[in-house]
Amino acid sequence: MERTNIAIVGLGTVGSGVAKLLLDHGDRTARHAGRTLWLKKAVVRDLAKPREIDLPAGVATDSLDDVINDPEISVVAQLIGGLEPARSIMLKLLESGKDIVTANKALLAEHGPELFTRARELGRSIAFEASVAGGIPIIANISQCLSANQICSLEGILNGTSNFIVTQMDEKGASYNDVVRKAQELGYAEADPAMDVDGTDAAQKLAILSHLAFGATVNWSEIPRIGIDGLDPDDLRYSRQLGYRIKLLALANLADDGLELSVAPTLVRIGTPLAEVRDAFNAIRVVGDAVGPVFYHGLGAGQMPTASAVVADLIDTAVGRTRLTFQTLEYFSIGQPPRAKLRDADTLVGRNYLRLNVANHPGTLASITTVLAKHQISIASVMQHEGENGATPLDSVPLVIMTHEATEGSAQAATREIESLDSITGPVVRLRVKD
Amino acid sequence: MERTNIAIVGLGTVGSGVAKLLLDHGDRTARHAGRTLWLKKAVVRDLAKPREIDLPAGVATDSLDDVINDPEISVVAQLIGGLEPARSIMLKLLESGKDIVTANKALLAEHGPELFTRARELGRSIAFEASVAGGIPIIANISQCLSANQICSLEGILNGTSNFIVTQMDEKGASYNDVVRKAQELGYAEADPAMDVDGTDAAQKLAILSHLAFGATVNWSEIPRIGIDGLDPDDLRYSRQLGYRIKLLALANLADDGLELSVAPTLVRIGTPLAEVRDAFNAIRVVGDAVGPVFYHGLGAGQMPTASAVVADLIDTAVGRTRLTFQTLEYFSIGQPPRAKLRDADTLVGRNYLRLNVANHPGTLASITTVLAKHQISIASVMQHEGENGATPLDSVPLVIMTHEATEGSAQAATREIESLDSITGPVVRLRVKD
Repeated sequence: MERTNIAIVGLGTVGSGVAKLLLDHGDRTARHAGRTLWLKKAVVRDLAKPREIDLPAGVATDSLDDVINDPEISVVAQLIGGLEPARSIMLKLLESGKDIVTANKALLAEHGPELFTRARELGRSIAFEASVAGGIPIIANISQCLSANQICSLEGILNGTSNFIVTQMDEKGASYNDVVRKAQELGYAEADPAMDVDGTDAAQKLAILSHLAFGATVNWSEIPRIGIDGLDPDDLRYSRQLGYRIKLLALANLADDGLELSVAPTLVRIGTPLAEVRDAFNAIRVVGDAVGPVFYHGLGAGQMPTASAVVADLIDTAVGRTRLTFQTLEYFSIGQPPRAKLRDADTLVGRNYLRLNVANHPGTLASITTVLAKHQISIASVMQHEGENGATPLDSVPLVIMTHEATEGSAQAATREIESLDSITGPVVRLRVKD
Repeated sequence: MERTNIAIVGLGTVGSGVAKLLLDHGDRTARHAGRTLWLKKAVVRDLAKPREIDLPAGVATDSLDDVINDPEISVVAQLIGGLEPARSIMLKLLESGKDIVTANKALLAEHGPELFTRARELGRSIAFEASVAGGIPIIANISQCLSANQICSLEGILNGTSNFIVTQMDEKGASYNDVVRKAQELGYAEADPAMDVDGTDAAQKLAILSHLAFGATVNWSEIPRIGIDGLDPDDLRYSRQLGYRIKLLALANLADDGLELSVAPTLVRIGTPLAEVRDAFNAIRVVGDAVGPVFYHGLGAGQMPTASAVVADLIDTAVGRTRLTFQTLEYFSIGQPPRAKLRDADTLVGRNYLRLNVANHPGTLASITTVLAKHQISIASVMQHEGENGATPLDSVPLVIMTHEATEGSAQAATREIESLDSITGPVVRLRVKD
C-alpha cells in the first residue's frame, strides 16, 4: 500500500491525540485514505519531557530541520499555538514543499491572507477544520456540503469555555469567579482565560466562518464583541424567569445593505436548540437559501474531538481532496474583493433586555418609559420585583425591561439617557435578545 | 472559465430545483467549482407537459440518447425514482462515460453493489448525498469529515413523512388516518405512503449509512423494522405522561459481537435533542470514538433541500473530489468482506414500554408481574388509570409498564405469555425505549 509520510509539529494535547490516532488506528486511516498515513517525525521542544504516548524510536525530534529537510514528508500537522513562532514555522514548512494541517485559529484569523496567498503561490494547501468548533466539521460543511447555497445567517456557540461558565452560573447560581476557578480545575479554562471569556476566541472563529460563508474579509478585531466576563448571575436568573437563557452567541447575518457580525451574551429562548447547548459543547445553526436551517452540535474542544478534525484533514490532504478544494475556493486571497461588507452597527435592529437599579418611588417608571418612547422603542414586558425584606421605599430595586425591535443606535442613545436620570443607580445592563 | 456540461435526467420536483440552482445561481456554483456548471440537457418524459421552470431553448429533450451520445456532457444528475428504468438508465449513463449524481435511495439500497462495482470498473463515480436526509449532508460527514473515527452508533429520524405524522398525532391528539390525509394535502406524504410509514424508507437509508459507517453489507430488507402505521394515539399520550415522545427511530449500534440495526417507533426522553425533532425535519446523532457525539438537524426532504445536496455533489464531481473519494472508499464493492455483521436480534438488550388491556379485578397485576419476573424482567414504573366514568369493575382498563433493560428474546417471550393470560384483552403493545 502506498504511504504518505506525516510529521506533527507540536506534541501538546492535540498533537498527542493526533499521534494516538495515527499510531493506534492505522487500519482506519488507511481505509479512508487508500494509503498508509505514516507518522515519521514529531517535533517537540524538549525531548526529555515525559509524554502521555510512546512514540516509536526515531520519531521524536527537537529539530524542525528534520522535517524541513526530509523530502519524504509531504504533510505536516502544525499544532503550535499562538502567532510566533507558529507563523514563521508554517511559512518555512510551506516553502519546503509541505502541505499543512492546522488547528491554530488565532494564526489564521490574524495572518490568514498572508499564509494562504503564500501557500497558493507555492502550490501547497492549508487545511484548518480543527481551527473552529473542533468536533463539528463546520469548515467542510460550509465550504463543500452547503456549496449550492447562499448562506443567509450563522449563529454559533463557538467558545466552549464561556459556555461551560455560563451553564454552571445559570444552573448552579454560582458566581463568575467561582465557576472560572472550577473550569480551570477541570481543564476547561486556561490559567489566563481572557481570550475565551472576553469574546476574542469566538470573534476569531466567526471571522474565519464569515470568510467561508460570505466572502467577508474582516479582521476579527473589527467584529463588535462583548464577553461573558462581566456577566451578573442576576441577569441569568431574570432571563430564565422571562423564558430565556443567556449564551455567548457569535452571529453573522447577511442583509441587502451588508453583513452583521457580532459576539455578545444574548438571550436565547428556552426550548430552541441553541438555548439547550450545555457546558463545553459548541453548536452552530446555519441557514442556507436552498437547504433551509441546518443545526450542528458537538464537542467544541478537547484532545480527541480536535484530533479527529486534524486527522480527517490529514486524510483529505493525503487523498488529494484538500488541494482541489484549496485551489478552487480562493480562501483568504490577498487582493480578492470582499463579497460582503460590514453593516453600520447603528442601523442594526434587534430586541433588548435592559436591567436597571431604580429608586423605589413614584414617577420612576414613567420617566424611564418616557425616554424609551422618545427613542421609538416600545416595551414588550416589564418585571419589577419587590425589594428585599426590610427594604425601605427609598432603596433601589431592580427593574427588567424587554423591548420590541429597535435600532442599535436608538437603544444606545436611550440607554445613555436613562443612565443620566436621577432615579437610576449605577449602569444599565443591556443585552441582546434573539428570537 | 472552464465549463463542465451537466445533464439532468428526470425533471420532477427535485430535478426542477436542481435546474433552478444551476440556471439562476451560476455565479455561486462557479465560485465553488472553479468552473461553470452548464446545464446542457434535461431529459423529460413528456415535452408538452407544463413545467414550473423555463429552460433555455434546446435544453429540454425527451431522448436519453441526446445525453448518452453527447461526449461533452460529463456529469449527469439522475433523478428518476424507483428501481426500473432508473437502474438501466444509470448503467447506460455510466457506460457512456458519465459520472452520476443521484438522490435515489431505493435504487442504491437494492442495487448499490452492482451499480458501484460497474462504476468502479468503468472509472466513473456515483455521488449520492441527496439519497439520505436531503438537507443534512450526512454522507459526506460520515465518509469524510468523521473519517478519523470508528463510528460507535447512529440514531436517526430519517423519514420526514413519518415524523410529521407522529408529531401531529402527538401535538394535536389526532388519529393516524386524519393526519395522513393532512400530510397528503400538504404534500408531505405520497398518495400511497406505505414505503414511508411502514419503515421501508428509513430502513433503506439506514442500510446506506451503515455501509458507510460500519462497512456492513446488509440488504435493507434484513433490517428488523416496524413502521408508525399501527401507532395508537393512546401510546403517544401515555408516553408523554411518562416523560417521553415516540419517534420512528433508525438505530445502528456497534458492539463486540456485531451490529444492531433496527427501525421502530421508540420512546425518546423529552428534552433530549432527538425528542425535539418536529414535523418534516430529520436528525441524526452520530457517536464516534474520537469526536464523541455529533448531532445534525435539518430538513429531510423537499425540493430545495434535496436540490442543495444534488448540486453540492455536482460541484464535488466537477471539481474532482468525488472521484478521489469514490476510488478510495470501496463503497458497496461486490466481494468485499463486511467489516461488521448483524447481531442476533434475540440477544439485544433494551428497555420496553408495554401497554395491556387488563381486567379490572384482583390478581391481574400479580399475574402479569409474575410472568415478567419469571423472564428476569424488572419493572421501572407502572401506570394504571381508573376506567372511564361509568366503567364497571369488570371492564378492562389500560395498564402501562416501563421495564428495565431486558434481552429482546425474553421481552418477546414474556409478551407472548402475558397475551395468553385470561385477564388480558387483545394484544400487548410493546415499544422500544431509548435512554
